[in-house]
This record gives sequence, structure tokens and C-alpha cells, in this order.
Amino acid sequence: MPHNVLYAQSGGVTAVINASACGVIETVHRHPEHFCKVFAARDGILGILHEELYDLALETPSEIAALRHTPGGAFGSCRADLGEPDTHPEQYARLLAVIRAHDIGTFIYNGGGGSMLTAAKVARFARLNDLDLNVIGVPKTIDNDLPKTDTSPGFGSAAKYIATSVREVSRDLAAMSGTSTKVFIMEVMGRHAGWLAAAAGLAFETEDFPLLLMFPETPFIERDFTAALQEYIARYGWCIVVVAEGLLCSDLSFCVQAQRSMTFGHEQLGGMAPQLATLTRKLGYKTHWAVSDYFQRSARHIASKVDVEQAYACGVAAVTHAMSGRSDVMVSIRRTSDEPYLWTLDAVPLDEVADMELPVPAEYIRADGFGITAAARRYMLPLIQGEDIPPFRDGLPVFAELKLQMAVKCLPDWA
Amino acid sequence: MPHNVLYAQSGGVTAVINASACGVIETVHRHPEHFCKVFAARDGILGILHEELYDLALETPSEIAALRHTPGGAFGSCRADLGEPDTHPEQYARLLAVIRAHDIGTFIYNGGGGSMLTAAKVARFARLNDLDLNVIGVPKTIDNDLPKTDTSPGFGSAAKYIATSVREVSRDLAAMSGTSTKVFIMEVMGRHAGWLAAAAGLAFETEDFPLLLMFPETPFIERDFTAALQEYIARYGWCIVVVAEGLLCSDLSFCVQAQRSMTFGHEQLGGMAPQLATLTRKLGYKTHWAVSDYFQRSARHIASKVDVEQAYACGVAAVTHAMSGRSDVMVSIRRTSDEPYLWTLDAVPLDEVADMELPVPAEYIRADGFGITAAARRYMLPLIQGEDIPPFRDGLPVFAELKLQMAVKCLPDWA
Repeated sequence: MPHNVLYAQSGGVTAVINASACGVIETVHRHPEHFCKVFAARDGILGILHEELYDLALETPSEIAALRHTPGGAFGSCRADLGEPDTHPEQYARLLAVIRAHDIGTFIYNGGGGSMLTAAKVARFARLNDLDLNVIGVPKTIDNDLPKTDTSPGFGSAAKYIATSVREVSRDLAAMSGTSTKVFIMEVMGRHAGWLAAAAGLAFETEDFPLLLMFPETPFIERDFTAALQEYIARYGWCIVVVAEGLLCSDLSFCVQAQRSMTFGHEQLGGMAPQLATLTRKLGYKTHWAVSDYFQRSARHIASKVDVEQAYACGVAAVTHAMSGRSDVMVSIRRTSDEPYLWTLDAVPLDEVADMELPVPAEYIRADGFGITAAARRYMLPLIQGEDIPPFRDGLPVFAELKLQMAVKCLPDWA
Repeated sequence: MPHNVLYAQSGGVTAVINASACGVIETVHRHPEHFCKVFAARDGILGILHEELYDLALETPSEIAALRHTPGGAFGSCRADLGEPDTHPEQYARLLAVIRAHDIGTFIYNGGGGSMLTAAKVARFARLNDLDLNVIGVPKTIDNDLPKTDTSPGFGSAAKYIATSVREVSRDLAAMSGTSTKVFIMEVMGRHAGWLAAAAGLAFETEDFPLLLMFPETPFIERDFTAALQEYIARYGWCIVVVAEGLLCSDLSFCVQAQRSMTFGHEQLGGMAPQLATLTRKLGYKTHWAVSDYFQRSARHIASKVDVEQAYACGVAAVTHAMSGRSDVMVSIRRTSDEPYLWTLDAVPLDEVADMELPVPAEYIRADGFGITAAARRYMLPLIQGEDIPPFRDGLPVFAELKLQMAVKCLPDWA
């Protein structure tokens, strides 16, 4: 008997999470023998509890197809998790009621490590209660910190944005450095893992460039940083610094929070970039700084083609896994060759990825802590290959415009 | 008798100033009957005084062609100006010596209002001393504050980057806003003119979007800002704020400097974006902020095709003006139709553009001060049309790699 599919997005969104949604939805629609409808919950797990389910049968195929090139999370996301069944039984009772009311046979949750924990909880609950429910996770995170998968969709595009931006800005800084700005600092995301800082290392094909990367994996030592910066500027005339927001001080506290409590009083004003700029200006260098924030994860116009293809394929695979009766797994990407980059899709138990964080391994960080190694380059370079430029109209990219009509609610409101 | 051409770049560089350089160099090379060589000064006027002239005959045509898609300033830039002839006669004597030593018959200076003042000084000196020197200015500034030209090359691409980024980030923010971030603040350049903040208004085709622009032309009134922000969030659930770095307080001092002296002590740490974020967080809204800084002027990968074409054409026109004997003028762009956008090139006296700053006119700013009008849209939209994507290799844009070999010096060093 065909049943319905419930899909939801969770955690920080990316430039390609909607490509995974597109893969899920189009694949469900191609298999009417297995599936009736596909619903998308509004704002992740919260929308499920609130029975806020968008009925995707009411969207046109062309707008569903347009999800493939639309950044952000089309259905809304959340950072919420389910409680444990023994402390929050009401959540699970509600979950069960929604699943039954809407005849859900497959639940696909698209997110990072925290979201896979939520999916694992749903899967365990289904198993313990003999529910006929396939629970499949789809990986997503620009942070690239999910284990057991070659990469996570979202990272490749953020990495391409960062490496492209750094390569471009190096031409600007080099032009100004003769008479003016000597240092440019870019702050990237990454509270616990420095993958996005590492991606900046791809900007130049060799190490013969004044680029100084600062990883959360390498605690900040002012003396070492100053020495490296001064050496670069003496040799090249300028230096680009790419710093992860989660840089740690030598006592392993966040540098940015240390600054906050020491200097700013009760309010957190700046990030790592302005903080480091204070230091480099004290050293006598005119400094410019930028904070990319959401731009690095929403810049769909410079998405990696490989990343888009993997995101879409992971969505497809989630549905085919469900069709073959699998549950309690996350779709994973397996690399079979570096050059040419070849990959296949696999599945890993949700418990092996739930709530995990994979840092940048030591062999990817240069001995001095301020750069990447050839191994890191070999790993990351395939992930930024190819362009996948969205359609433009009137000078700007055009994105999906969904109707987002809710399915009729069957249950009482959820408080 | 063919003579040599001297070209130089000045002021903050852009994504397309090298396209103007390309137009100059290729046109000179197409006219051996008029010109011998083209030299490019290192770091603008300073390189001329130091007799640091790159000999562009030593570059390959393909690398010169690649300048068209290379951001930054290939020859280095500066923010320096010449003194007045009566107070700094030694500068003019040196200028004359360099011009004579290298048989310069045409001087092309590529920059903004300040740079046109330098060009005007050179032109006046040449006229008063009966030098056979054609002095031509080529407009360049992302700030779009040059008068007497429809726009300045560099603005269209920065505007396209900003509008694209805002449109993309709106999809991210909308997804997060249900349960998390409600406000996203983007700081853009513009110390005295709000053209780049205005460009963000192009991100959405109608005014029916929660986008709040903050212009240097509209002094900041906290009560009005708070009311507008709260109204947007009540209606849409989220709001994007785009603020010019040069926002003024009600006493017409820079807001960012006021904050600096009041709160930060002796060091300027942050810009307008983190400062505004303090305010929006106090209002109870989870806020993310970004500062684009150099990225907005170096993002060649998302350049406007119209802008690239105008930049190149301005370089070409500078040479043809010189060939027809003109001097003491800046190439200007004249709009002949809004839709379709049609333009021709013209020339304006350097004195009419030197050291001028054109603010955003009142009729382009919405009555409440927080948006743009239909007239602004009609003016700006043509300037971001078309994509001009640079070649990519291995996932990243490829830029010109010039040899940058200096012409042999003939003069004693300049102190």
C-alpha cells in the first residue's frame, strides 16, 4: 500500500539543502507505486509536532525543480531536538499521532549531527513501537563535521565561495598594499571544526602565498601569529588572514568570548575578525576585515557543481533506501577515487553519526598551524569542482517560488 | 611621430578597473601609427614620480586580454595626490623629467573623484608649459559618486554582488526566522554616498519585502529605525538591514565613530553592522551580521556584464580621445534610454568632476528613508544586467598572470 513521505530540514541551512529536498520530492513523485504524497514539515521537527505540513502535491513540477538552485531552507528549519522518551513522552505520543493521521511511512530528516540525533530518536521510537516507519537521514552541513561520509552537502559550495572570495580579494589587497592596506582579515564560520578556514587554503595553487589560516584546532598564540604575519608581510608586502569564528585561546576558551567579557562588558559586539584587526593595527599595519556570516552558506550563485549533484543524489538515495526497506540510517558519500573524483552513495547507522563532530585531522594542518597540507588539498579540491550557475533574470538569480499550502490539520493544537 | 602612452590606476580598486586597463592597452596596440608603447605606472601617480613603469610590450596578448576578467588593480594603486605646483614644484619637475625620459605623449589616469583632481593638475601643468601631452581620465569607483557620467565602472558589479547576496541571504534568514535568527545586518561601503546601500534595494522586485536600507543621506534616528524594524518583523517574521558604513547620527557625526569614542576607548573595533546588532539584540531579536568590505568590490565572479563592457569601452575611448587630440577630459557615460538601456561615451572637462561627490538624490530615497523609489530602481537596474563569468579552472576563477617587468630607469632615484 502506498504511504506518504514526510521530509523536513533542520539546523543551519545551506546553498544546496533544497537540492536534497528536490531529489527527495522528485523521486517520490516518480514512484507512485510506492508512495502517495510527500509532505514537508515547517521548521523541522517543530512543524511535525505542530502538524504544520506543507502539501507538496500542490506545487508545480517546475517550482519543485527550481528548488535545485534555490539557497536557504524552503520549508523552514529549526535547531530544536526531541527530548528523551522517558522525560518527554508527550512529544512521542504527538509524533505518533501526526504520523498516523497523515499516513506517514517514510520520514526523511535533512540536517547535521544534531539533526541526526533527532532522527535516531524517531527511529528508535519507531522500532520499539513496531511502527511501519522508515527513518532516513540526509546529510547537510557547511561545517563538514559529519563523520562516516566523504563530505556533507553544503560544505563544497561554502568552500568554493570562500576560496573564490579569497583569490579575488588577494588581487585587491595586492594592489592596495604598496601604499595602504597591508592586512585583510576574513572571518568564516566553524565553532568547533576548521574546515571552512581550511577551504581558504584552496585559493592558491601553491603555498607560495601570504595566506595565514587560523583553525579552532590550533589554539591561538599571539607571539606565533605575530611572527608569521610579520614574516609574510616582509616577504610579500601583504597578508590575508582567514580566521574561524571558534578560534581558541591557549586556555582553550573561545578567543571571541574572552574578548567579550574582558573588554566589551555585557554585550558581544564583534567577532574574531575585528578583534584580530585590533592586534594587526597595533603592529602598525593598515587592516581591512570582513565577516561573511550567512553569505558563505547562502551564496548559491557560486555553488560547487559536485556539491549540488551530491546534495540532489543524497535526496534521491534517501527515498530509494526507504523503498528497499532500510531505516535508521543516514545516506553517506563514499569516495572511491581522488583523481578523477569518483563517489558512490552508501548508508551508515544513525547512531554512528548522531551528535558527532569531526575536526580537521592533524595531517591536514601544516606543521606551523597556519596552513593546509597537500593531503588536505587532495581531499578538498574535488569538492569545489564545477559551476552550477542558477538562472538569472534582470541581472539577478531566480529562485523557487513555492505556494507552501498546508495540509488540512486533523489533530488538536499542540501546546 | 608615434609616442608612448602612460596608464595608471588610482584609489580603491574594483572588479572591473582592469577591464578598463585592457581596453586602453589593446587599443594602443591596435594603433601603431599613433603609438609606440604603453607603460603602466606602479601604484598610480607615485610610480610615475619613482619612474617605476611596467613595460607592457613584454606581456603576452592573452594575459593582457585576461585583464578583462581580473579583479583588483593589476599595476597597484595609491590614494596619493600631487601637491600644488607652487608649493611642490619638485613634483612637477620630476613629472616632466619622467614624461620626457619615456617619450610620453598620452597620460591616462583611471580612478574616482580624487584621482581626477590629480589628472586635472597634470593637465593644467601640461597646458601651462606647452607640453604635447594628452591627459585623459577614465572613471572608476564602486561608490558611484562621480558626477557628469551615467555611472562609474565598478559600481554595477558591486551593486550586482550586493543585490544577489541580499536576495540569497533572504532565503536563509526566512528559513531560520521561525525559531531562531530574526535580523540579518549587512554593512556595505559608502562613507558619504549611499549608492551601495541603495543597490540592495534591487534584491527584491517589489517593496513587499522586509528590507531596511540605511543611507548616509538619512541621519540615524533610533526611534524611527526601531519602529520600522519592529513593524517589518511583526508582518514578515524577519528583516534584513543593509547599512552604509558612513551612516550619520542626528548631529551629522559618523555613527561608527561616535560609538568608538563613547564605548571602545582608543580603538575602533567594529563597524556599523556589529553596532546595530547590539541594538537589535537589545530589542530581543536574535541577530546575525556580516561586513562585506573588499569582497563587494573584488567579486569578479558575479560582475555585471554591462559594467564590464562599460569599463572596457571607457578604456578604449580614452585612447581614441587622445588620438583625436583631446585632453583635460574624463571619459563619461551618457544614457540615451532606460529600457532598453542604451548608452554612448562622451567626455567631460576634468575640472567638472575633480574631487566631487554625488550623493544619492532625494528622489531615489523612499519617503521614510529606509528604501528606494521606483526612479532609483529604473536608474540602477540596467547597470547590473548580464553576467560575465570569468574562466574557471579546477573549481576557481583564473585571472591574469602578468610578468610586470619594469622599463629601464633613465633618471636618478626620487626621494
